Amino acid sequence: MSMPTNTLSIFALGGLNEVGKNMYAIQNDDDIIVIDCGNKFPDESLLGIDLIIPDITYLVENKEKVKALIVTHGHEDHIGGIPYFLKQLNVPVYATRFTLGLIELKLREHKILRESELIEINPDSKVKIGDMDVSFFRVFHSIPDCLGIVFHTAQGNIVHTGDFKFDLTPASNEHSDIHRMAEIGREGVLLLLSESTNAERPGFTPSEQMVGEHLEQAFMKAKAKIFVTTFASNVSRLQQVVNAAQKTNRKLVLLGRTMVNVVKIAMERGYIIVPEEMIIEPRDMYDYASENLAILCTGSQGEPLAALARLSTGEFRDVDVLPGDTVIFAAGPIPGNERGITTIVDNLFELGANVIYGSGSTSGMHVSGHGYQEDLKLMLTLMRPKYFIPIHGEYRMLYHHRRLAESVGVEEGNTFILKNGDVVDIENSTPRQTREVPVGNTYVDGGEVGDLEYVLQDRKKISEDGMLMLILTINKAEGTLLAEPEVISRGFTDGDFSKFRKDIHRITMETIEELQAENRMKRNAIKKLLKRNVGQFIRSDSRKQPMIVPILIEL
Amino acid sequence: MSMPTNTLSIFALGGLNEVGKNMYAIQNDDDIIVIDCGNKFPDESLLGIDLIIPDITYLVENKEKVKALIVTHGHEDHIGGIPYFLKQLNVPVYATRFTLGLIELKLREHKILRESELIEINPDSKVKIGDMDVSFFRVFHSIPDCLGIVFHTAQGNIVHTGDFKFDLTPASNEHSDIHRMAEIGREGVLLLLSESTNAERPGFTPSEQMVGEHLEQAFMKAKAKIFVTTFASNVSRLQQVVNAAQKTNRKLVLLGRTMVNVVKIAMERGYIIVPEEMIIEPRDMYDYASENLAILCTGSQGEPLAALARLSTGEFRDVDVLPGDTVIFAAGPIPGNERGITTIVDNLFELGANVIYGSGSTSGMHVSGHGYQEDLKLMLTLMRPKYFIPIHGEYRMLYHHRRLAESVGVEEGNTFILKNGDVVDIENSTPRQTREVPVGNTYVDGGEVGDLEYVLQDRKKISEDGMLMLILTINKAEGTLLAEPEVISRGFTDGDFSKFRKDIHRITMETIEELQAENRMKRNAIKKLLKRNVGQFIRSDSRKQPMIVPILIEL
Repeated sequence: MSMPTNTLSIFALGGLNEVGKNMYAIQNDDDIIVIDCGNKFPDESLLGIDLIIPDITYLVENKEKVKALIVTHGHEDHIGGIPYFLKQLNVPVYATRFTLGLIELKLREHKILRESELIEINPDSKVKIGDMDVSFFRVFHSIPDCLGIVFHTAQGNIVHTGDFKFDLTPASNEHSDIHRMAEIGREGVLLLLSESTNAERPGFTPSEQMVGEHLEQAFMKAKAKIFVTTFASNVSRLQQVVNAAQKTNRKLVLLGRTMVNVVKIAMERGYIIVPEEMIIEPRDMYDYASENLAILCTGSQGEPLAALARLSTGEFRDVDVLPGDTVIFAAGPIPGNERGITTIVDNLFELGANVIYGSGSTSGMHVSGHGYQEDLKLMLTLMRPKYFIPIHGEYRMLYHHRRLAESVGVEEGNTFILKNGDVVDIENSTPRQTREVPVGNTYVDGGEVGDLEYVLQDRKKISEDGMLMLILTINKAEGTLLAEPEVISRGFTDGDFSKFRKDIHRITMETIEELQAENRMKRNAIKKLLKRNVGQFIRSDSRKQPMIVPILIEL
Repeated sequence: MSMPTNTLSIFALGGLNEVGKNMYAIQNDDDIIVIDCGNKFPDESLLGIDLIIPDITYLVENKEKVKALIVTHGHEDHIGGIPYFLKQLNVPVYATRFTLGLIELKLREHKILRESELIEINPDSKVKIGDMDVSFFRVFHSIPDCLGIVFHTAQGNIVHTGDFKFDLTPASNEHSDIHRMAEIGREGVLLLLSESTNAERPGFTPSEQMVGEHLEQAFMKAKAKIFVTTFASNVSRLQQVVNAAQKTNRKLVLLGRTMVNVVKIAMERGYIIVPEEMIIEPRDMYDYASENLAILCTGSQGEPLAALARLSTGEFRDVDVLPGDTVIFAAGPIPGNERGITTIVDNLFELGANVIYGSGSTSGMHVSGHGYQEDLKLMLTLMRPKYFIPIHGEYRMLYHHRRLAESVGVEEGNTFILKNGDVVDIENSTPRQTREVPVGNTYVDGGEVGDLEYVLQDRKKISEDGMLMLILTINKAEGTLLAEPEVISRGFTDGDFSKFRKDIHRITMETIEELQAENRMKRNAIKKLLKRNVGQFIRSDSRKQPMIVPILIEL
């Protein structure tokens, strides 16, 4: 049993009011255990940014207390921030075998695998971290080897579900451990943290079995090559493709680095069974008739550099999509990716392929890995928590999840809808929302990691309206110009710039004369007045407001 | 009847392999008639661009032949380019009364209303333009007063449907004129151009009646203010809101400039019936109890400056969304707009509103204005064309539309799937795809209109990786530096730039020394070598490749 402590605190460093970047923490007096460390992908407004990860300032400031990172499963929104996290906080990482495989790939890429401490656990593991006893339970999701977590504390049991759905006929043998969940619920759950991704969708999530049946039908019907694109990490979906290929006597080709890597890990660790000699190299595929080939490839989200995008434009070396081939999207579009995906669909149709696409519900080729409303109610019913924090999702999802909780018996007022950083403190087994810890977005931009506030401001300004550089060469002693002012623009106008140039020239000269007359030829005064006068002129002529950068060379 | 001509040509200047920017043309020896002149809105890759309109170079080069612009209806993707078109080709514009109202608004804004020739037509009009006889028929769509067009030519009849669906129980009295369509089909149609927007969707488009019923139920249930957001141009949807407000004894407030303008035009021209004294000013709304208020507002697509976005963040003067209010999205999300919309939905939930949203099919508050597969088949069946060109849509939509045409009897090989610019020439009543005319995108960027190729290239480069300016002051005669090189960056790094600066300094000096030693201190040589050397250094240290702008000041 744990030692009694005065206060137990729960908070999110990412994952609330957003989809992705999941990171939660549970803290008693001397220990902080972190749950997950995900990334999220930037939208188009974050110009040039590669990744968004949680700001872990609070953890770094409490470095000596941070005892462990527990990872529920291997999706990017739960593991993508780990290399950056470990570079600052080199604590043990607890995860299952398959999840560790994916984490290892990342750490190797960042060249920190050797110094990292990775601890393999399974659903039956019981570990003591600092003062806390921690146990686990198996949940089913769209990637192998997923965990929920139970923190056995003096305040009561705290349960974190990870990502899950209930699928009574999954494509793998990884059933949700409903019996264990029921047992946990019988023992008593003080506080449940449960994921909210599909809290707006009525009903139960459809079963993976449906996808298997549709895949098999499509494989039977196809008379030439079949391309299937899906998330590489959805190993049970990959297994279904393997099964369909086997039934229809097709060799399997893997395209895309992630697909090759993940299938390798999954085969080595026993999460996927592929018949011997089924997988062939792309360069060997034309040894086989087209009706004996299936190709598994990356790119289901329209990623412009992934295999499918290159196939759709005929730019993939050694492999062509030909008239009569079938292309199956066995993955739904993540919101925001629709445009990229449909461009690829159009290109594939132009190549003469038969394309099976659309949201899973229309094509039958995809089901969500996240539980719908009835799944969420089942989890709440099994766990019977006294208090509830909906996690993972935008506000509207958390809001709907609260309503679901109330519909199955969580008392009104016992649900906490939090923002990242909001702390729930538990004393005398009673949670209250109290203080806040600092949170935010940290950006990865090329090699740089930080808040990048000014860089992004500049990029945004220039990307919309362009910029104008005004270069003045000044005799410092005399306060006079040594050369004609130079005016250079980028991203501002393609048109007749000579008009602008002449006017800007004139305004610059007038500004300098004004300053000279007033004996104010100081760096800051010159820059400020130039920006103002040239800015005013441009606004009078154009709706664009380029960034104006005066540059003074003093000799 | 028309004079016999040797060849009749049909082509698109916009609208094929894209959604939006619709513009088609029909040409005989001496006459070109243009159909529609739409815009499309840029995606995020077109940094800073306001609008995309068709490149009309071909028409300008054949200026003396262009006889008229016929506009099928008043949506932006059919009228948004008109001001830019008329500034170059001041030809008569034929459109119905409501459509002309919207066009007039635009021309007034561009200050060219007075010199433009606008000719009002109706579904019974018959006009002769150049050598061509033209008649019309009424189609039903999500805006009043929509036309299909029949060109009576010596080659045969050519029909352009405009945008349409068949709604047998519309919310207005504007029924599709099925009898007239049947008559046209009986007379014989050589070639049909029909819109393809929903060619992928099975079944018939649901009726507007469904929306009316759902709106009324929601109005009955609501106990406080009701906000409804929809497309201002969907006047029959507005009428349904007026009707529901009337039944539940609510005053109506209009928010958003477009909403106010369009309702004004629709009321003046008799397209909407609003009970006297129902519309009140925003500032007067707090004279009424909240259950006696309905608010119609712009912003259904998540536009950040529209009324609903400002309401959702509490920034709308005089009007607040309060706990218990209802907000109804009576418009579906246009693909690409989902993220902006869901942000607003989240904010509205946070304000305590009951938000009714989602695609129309889930909320019941929206139906598409474009015909689904059965609507498209009905049009094809009524028209019985010998030849067919699917228009308006991405490749996959055109592809599916061809399959629909073949399923109702258009002979295989008689459908032309074209790209913008592809010309179908008709001789001896036989169409063949022949040559191409020049086409493209013209961008509107602030006050500038053009292809803006370099501007966009620069913006893209800088927005992703930032830029570095290297300023060298050179004694021209001696080929020596007069000052330390200046290094200035924007959008490149927030971090420790001093390291970069020092190295770049060093590389710049080395480069200059190399050039001096080889006696190559020429502008172009200096710029080229600086770009190369500094670029190489940065690539060795960072994955970013900023734009490098060497600036030489020669004294």
